[in-house]
Amino acid sequence: MILLSFASEETTSTDTIEWSAMKNESTTDRNLTWHHHGVERKDREKLLGHRGATVWFTGLSGSGKSTVADYLSEMLQERGALTAILDGDNVRQGLNKDLGFSPADRTENIRRISEVAKLFTSFGVINLLAFISPYREDRDYGRSIQGEDDFIEVYVEVPLDVAEERDPKGLYKKARSGEIPSFTGISAPYEEPLTPELVLRTDLSTPEECAAKVIEILEQKGVLTV
Amino acid sequence: MILLSFASEETTSTDTIEWSAMKNESTTDRNLTWHHHGVERKDREKLLGHRGATVWFTGLSGSGKSTVADYLSEMLQERGALTAILDGDNVRQGLNKDLGFSPADRTENIRRISEVAKLFTSFGVINLLAFISPYREDRDYGRSIQGEDDFIEVYVEVPLDVAEERDPKGLYKKARSGEIPSFTGISAPYEEPLTPELVLRTDLSTPEECAAKVIEILEQKGVLTV
Repeated sequence: MILLSFASEETTSTDTIEWSAMKNESTTDRNLTWHHHGVERKDREKLLGHRGATVWFTGLSGSGKSTVADYLSEMLQERGALTAILDGDNVRQGLNKDLGFSPADRTENIRRISEVAKLFTSFGVINLLAFISPYREDRDYGRSIQGEDDFIEVYVEVPLDVAEERDPKGLYKKARSGEIPSFTGISAPYEEPLTPELVLRTDLSTPEECAAKVIEILEQKGVLTV
Repeated sequence: MILLSFASEETTSTDTIEWSAMKNESTTDRNLTWHHHGVERKDREKLLGHRGATVWFTGLSGSGKSTVADYLSEMLQERGALTAILDGDNVRQGLNKDLGFSPADRTENIRRISEVAKLFTSFGVINLLAFISPYREDRDYGRSIQGEDDFIEVYVEVPLDVAEERDPKGLYKKARSGEIPSFTGISAPYEEPLTPELVLRTDLSTPEECAAKVIEILEQKGVLTV
């Protein structure tokens, strides 16, 4: 019980009541007053003209996750939709710079990303995640904390040899030589999604075609049609 | 060197190049092509009609941080601006649920919040942070990772006895009785800001007046006038 009280110190929900009202109204009235004050998710979505949602791209290094996310972001921007892209560039150097690539750190990496994605969704932003995210359980956690229509898992699938041939950063070469000891697809596991909302074959379609398929899903889910 | 290569596995910046172009163009051309593709911060800000920025409310429990943030959010929403509120409710239960209230955990709590705030700013969202955030060094870290015009520190100041009299959750009473062992202002330090952008006295002004003062700062900083 003490722990609960303790943990609530910085949890400020009831701290948000209008203070001038605190002496004049009953607790019930205060809560009622409060609920009429806040800006809610639906208000922000009305402002933006679309719903918040997470599009989670998963797949091997070199599969094209970020490329599709970038094309998608551009196409959505042209439609007037607000996107946020979360990827290694802006997460591994900031929020998760204390984490490495051990299984436990990979799981914590994805846990935090899942929570940040949920925040973006809650404020109406269409957030696009481009992470290898090799563990099924970790991705499922990301899904479990959001609403059913708020989460779209996109498996960016290419045969390993195609990804390895692309090898845009020479990482596969280093993984094969042993210079990188734990590399997804070579020396670390990748668990394919069992029931993703969408599978993209980036070796058979252009980035534009792939992004267009995601937009179709966003339309079907009602994300783009508030 | 190996660590650097290793850490870059999930850093996918060069992974974002259009793959169909990878065999046809020189590295220089590819980079150039890439830079013309992405949606940038200024594009999103143009879409939203305002700049991204962090408004960081700091102060004692019961000082009124969340109340002012909520009024501000409502006033900005009415002006058509997109806000996000980060507070104990949506951070301590999610992203930072693994953290307690030791000095080290408080610092990590604020470090992660700082990084998430930076992300929201980078996508054009006016993000409002309502956390006690008692340590000067932690708040300064939050400032240091953002642009000078992107960070507005607001000290929500009330005399301790006023905050304690409000005591909306009965936490001060528990702190005085020793039930909560480490409570800011009673048994844990609060370091006042030395040069905040704004000081609000919530015992002398209404929430609306306080929020209006923040809007003045946002106008002065050019956040609301893209």
